[in-house]
This record gives sequence, structure tokens and C-alpha cells, in this order.
Amino acid sequence: MLKFFFGPHSCALASHIALEESGLPYEAVRLDLVAGDQKKPEYLKINPKARVPALVTDRGVLTENPAILAYIAQTAPKAKLAPLDDAYAFGKIQAFNSYLCATVHVAHAHGRRGYRWADEQSSYDDMKRKVPETMAACFELIEKDMFEGPWVAGKDYSIADPYLFTMESWMPSDQVDPKRFPALLEHRERMEQRPAVQKVLPLHG
Amino acid sequence: MLKFFFGPHSCALASHIALEESGLPYEAVRLDLVAGDQKKPEYLKINPKARVPALVTDRGVLTENPAILAYIAQTAPKAKLAPLDDAYAFGKIQAFNSYLCATVHVAHAHGRRGYRWADEQSSYDDMKRKVPETMAACFELIEKDMFEGPWVAGKDYSIADPYLFTMESWMPSDQVDPKRFPALLEHRERMEQRPAVQKVLPLHG
Repeated sequence: MLKFFFGPHSCALASHIALEESGLPYEAVRLDLVAGDQKKPEYLKINPKARVPALVTDRGVLTENPAILAYIAQTAPKAKLAPLDDAYAFGKIQAFNSYLCATVHVAHAHGRRGYRWADEQSSYDDMKRKVPETMAACFELIEKDMFEGPWVAGKDYSIADPYLFTMESWMPSDQVDPKRFPALLEHRERMEQRPAVQKVLPLHG
Repeated sequence: MLKFFFGPHSCALASHIALEESGLPYEAVRLDLVAGDQKKPEYLKINPKARVPALVTDRGVLTENPAILAYIAQTAPKAKLAPLDDAYAFGKIQAFNSYLCATVHVAHAHGRRGYRWADEQSSYDDMKRKVPETMAACFELIEKDMFEGPWVAGKDYSIADPYLFTMESWMPSDQVDPKRFPALLEHRERMEQRPAVQKVLPLHG
């Protein structure tokens, strides 16, 4: 059975929702990221990057949301979480998820984990100040040029939706007013009505 | 025919090599990133993110290396650039590419594009100073825990290899001594012997 490692308020929410939607049997294990569970030797054996999410399969461990999300979609084709037989449509979803992973999540992380990229407190403060601007710019691009609606890729729900939902849920703490992005606000509300989200979200609080 | 937009010394090298390996017909268009070609209105219609790479297909545009690389592998199955029928093996390669995209490339970018995440010169200087340390930590993790050898995923060459090669080629400018990472140095040399690399690399200088 799949074993899924996550932490509260982390990007692992995306893969957790997708797992729940997939119908695949899995066990979820919550790490206390503040207490440093992710740096303990037993977890480093699972994911030497000391991050979540990590998905333990019978073949080995997968990390990184974009990879785990695509794996879930491919392993549970009946759940129709991605257009598996259409390389272009699949590529669009992967491009979207890549942008969330490498640009949006990275922008967000500068508000709280500046130590990854700098050493001075003044730099951390500078980075933190810029987060509302950079995150708003990301959501503007998404709403204007990338989001098709009602779901990310148009009429069909996909693995891009729980990932976008995860980033949308960070807007308040990043001081981005959700009302500036009406399509994304509606998307967030639409997501909140899904049973998988209602089941998984409370575990991430 | 596919149309591929790239810039010199950029991460687009990864997708360019894979395109060349794929045997797919394509036209490559070089942008002058210093002159700001990527911010011109005609390019923003192709990629509103003002970045490279971008791959124009007959269906629309794909961006982001991990997405373009997977698309190339799926569109040219005979080139065997990824284990397309094995969700776990494909997921490992996607996880590797996601790490390059969201962690290694991001670490590298702090040495030259700190303005993305901060506003003060002192922060840019601080970020720049840390790049040799963060990049070396990335390569250490890759060499120790992620790279199987002789190719990234083991005996079979894949879309992870030109992407890793691209990051390896940044070592000198990021003040990382390649000799610290013998397996990666060998990988780089192995890549340099491939005809596709020999054809594409000079276009990126």
C-alpha cells in the first residue's frame, strides 16, 4: 500500500487531495515540521531532501509534487486526473504544475525560508517584504493567461487543480487579497466543495 | 513543425538537446536575452512569462523544461527518452527534473537575478555570496542520493540527462569545483560525446 508523508500547511496538500481523489489505497503520515520530524534519520532515509511530500511505493520513493501528481494520475487512470493519452494536453498540465512548483512556491518560500538563499537578517526582511508583490504577480499571470476555467485545464478536473488550490490557500498569509483574482477565488470555493478536499483539508491545519 | 525558442547560456539547452535526440523535425529560434527579445510583444504572445524555453506545437505553446522534456519523450517514443509505460520509473525521472527546475535552477538564479525576490543591493550581494554553497549542496545530494549512473536513471539515457548536463555546465560560473563531484564530472564528459550535444551546444554559446 502507498504510504504518504505530509506536513501541515505545506504543499503536500496538493498530492494528498489527488491521492484521495484517485481511489488508490494509501496510508497518510503527518510529520511535525516545526518539531523537525523531516530531519530525523528515519525520515532522511525516505527523503534525503528533508522535505514533504514523499510517497513510498512498493518500488521505492517518489518526491516532488509534479512527479507524485503525475504518478497518481497514471496509476489510477479510471479517476481521470489527467489526459494521459494526449501528450500536448498532459504537457499543458505539467507546465502549469512546473510553474507552481518552481515559481509560485519559490516566491512564497522567500517569506519564511530566506535562509535557503541568503545569510543576513536584512536580506530575509527584504525578501519577506516583497512576497505580496511577487505572489500577486504570479496569480495575475495565472488568472489572465494560464487558468482556463472552471478548472485549470478547462472543463475537466485534473492534477493541476489541487496544486493550484494549495497555492490559493496561501494568499491570506502572503497578504494577497483573493478578491483581486475572482476566477481563482471561485476556483478555490469550487475546490472546497469536493469531498476529497473536505476530508483531507482538516488534517493539514 | 515544432518551433523552439531558446536563449544562450540558459536552461533551454536541456530541451534543445532532447529535441535533437528525439528525431522530431523542429526549427530553433535563438533569442537575445541580454537585448530583451523575451520581453518583446511578439514573444510575450508566445510566452507571457517572458522566459525560455518555449515550444510552439500545432496545438499551442508548451513552456517549462520538465513539461517540454516529457512532451518530447512522449511524442517521439522510438527515441526512448523516458520509460513511458512505467509510471514509477517515469515518476523518478520527473522527480529528478522537478528538483533541477525548482531547487537547483532556483539556487543558481540567486547569483544573477536576485531582483526577482528582493529589492536591496545588499540582499543581491548576500544571495550571490551564498550560491557556491547552495549549488554545491545540490550537487552533493544529486551525486550521493539521486544519480544512479552511468546515466541519471541508470543504464538508460533519458530526458533527465540533458537537464542535469545543463546544470553541470553552470558549475564553473557558480564557483563549484567539478572535481568535487567525480560521477557528475564523468556524466558531463559522457554527455559531451553525444552527437546531439555537439550539434546543439555551440548554438548556446
